[in-house]
Amino acid sequence: MLTLYSMPSSGNSYKVRLLLALLGRPYHHIPCESQSPELQTAKTEGKLPLGKVPALHLETGEVLSESNAILWYLASGTSWIPNDPLDQARMLSWMFFEQNRHEPVIAVRASLRSYPHLADEATPELLEELLVSGNSILDLMEHGLQGQDWFAGDTPTIADIALYSYTHTAEDRGGFDLSPFSAIRDWLNRTGALPGFEPLTGPAHG
Amino acid sequence: MLTLYSMPSSGNSYKVRLLLALLGRPYHHIPCESQSPELQTAKTEGKLPLGKVPALHLETGEVLSESNAILWYLASGTSWIPNDPLDQARMLSWMFFEQNRHEPVIAVRASLRSYPHLADEATPELLEELLVSGNSILDLMEHGLQGQDWFAGDTPTIADIALYSYTHTAEDRGGFDLSPFSAIRDWLNRTGALPGFEPLTGPAHG
Repeated sequence: MLTLYSMPSSGNSYKVRLLLALLGRPYHHIPCESQSPELQTAKTEGKLPLGKVPALHLETGEVLSESNAILWYLASGTSWIPNDPLDQARMLSWMFFEQNRHEPVIAVRASLRSYPHLADEATPELLEELLVSGNSILDLMEHGLQGQDWFAGDTPTIADIALYSYTHTAEDRGGFDLSPFSAIRDWLNRTGALPGFEPLTGPAHG
Repeated sequence: MLTLYSMPSSGNSYKVRLLLALLGRPYHHIPCESQSPELQTAKTEGKLPLGKVPALHLETGEVLSESNAILWYLASGTSWIPNDPLDQARMLSWMFFEQNRHEPVIAVRASLRSYPHLADEATPELLEELLVSGNSILDLMEHGLQGQDWFAGDTPTIADIALYSYTHTAEDRGGFDLSPFSAIRDWLNRTGALPGFEPLTGPAHG
């Protein structure tokens, strides 16, 4: 059986748990919460090759790191990845955007507001700067959803899973106002209604 | 013919030009240097859907953004992408690592040291912080290359192109010392010797 090391409160980890739920795939879960001894043990024992959760341990003993690469592996051969290389590239475009531009702003603002050990770094100037850049990221997403239900076309793909994770907590945890972004709000509702959907249940503060 | 909007001085843009050179594919190049009127015009005219270069315009009029997604599209059907989904996931793992962890540290340190318009942000404290975190990123790469010539296995893939771009300028532009990283240095030499290789020729300072 697959073994997943993941952080209950983290969006990058939630992506993987969400796809496993949507696929109906059983797995052994080893929770490694932020600042927990379990996370430290997993690092010390070499269970996290790139030093971070999530990490997926396959039956063969091989380990995959990086949430979006794990999504690719799990979704291979399913409808969650399109077949055409151009459609795949469009999907991956949103997934690289998520890791390079969305997560470092929207997830980082949520972390600064939520995790007690980051409180000293959460200056009003930094939070304001992240609010402004986060809204421009949300603008690009709103634009990307014009005339389509899902980011990479007519059906949900792993780009939707990747972007859902930190967007659906952008209001509660990140302090963003999603009311001007009606296409994003509709897409969040659509994703939350997918068969097999499971909510993020980890603590909001780590 | 393909049309590429790219920034001569930028590593994200260089990745795409390098792969096109290695593949021997002709393309029309529209240089958009940092702070240039050409870049502003491309943005204003809607040529950059996610607001950034590189952007690849296909013969059909469709546009692809995000450097690593463009690499995926261009390399599809070639030996630069492995066929097996697990090998693909391993390759993508390094490419997401590159966009989420490598580029925001190693490329950002190079930008802060190189681009005159960023000089005010380049405080000694920030440069030191990026030096420390950059060295831990280089450690992970050095470890990943133990016992193998290329990041995703026995042959070069687009993960190598993605990581080469900002690593080969880490000393000159980024101010990192690569002498302790012998596997990285050997891999840089190996990549620079690939048939069709073209060097980064854009200005170091934008």
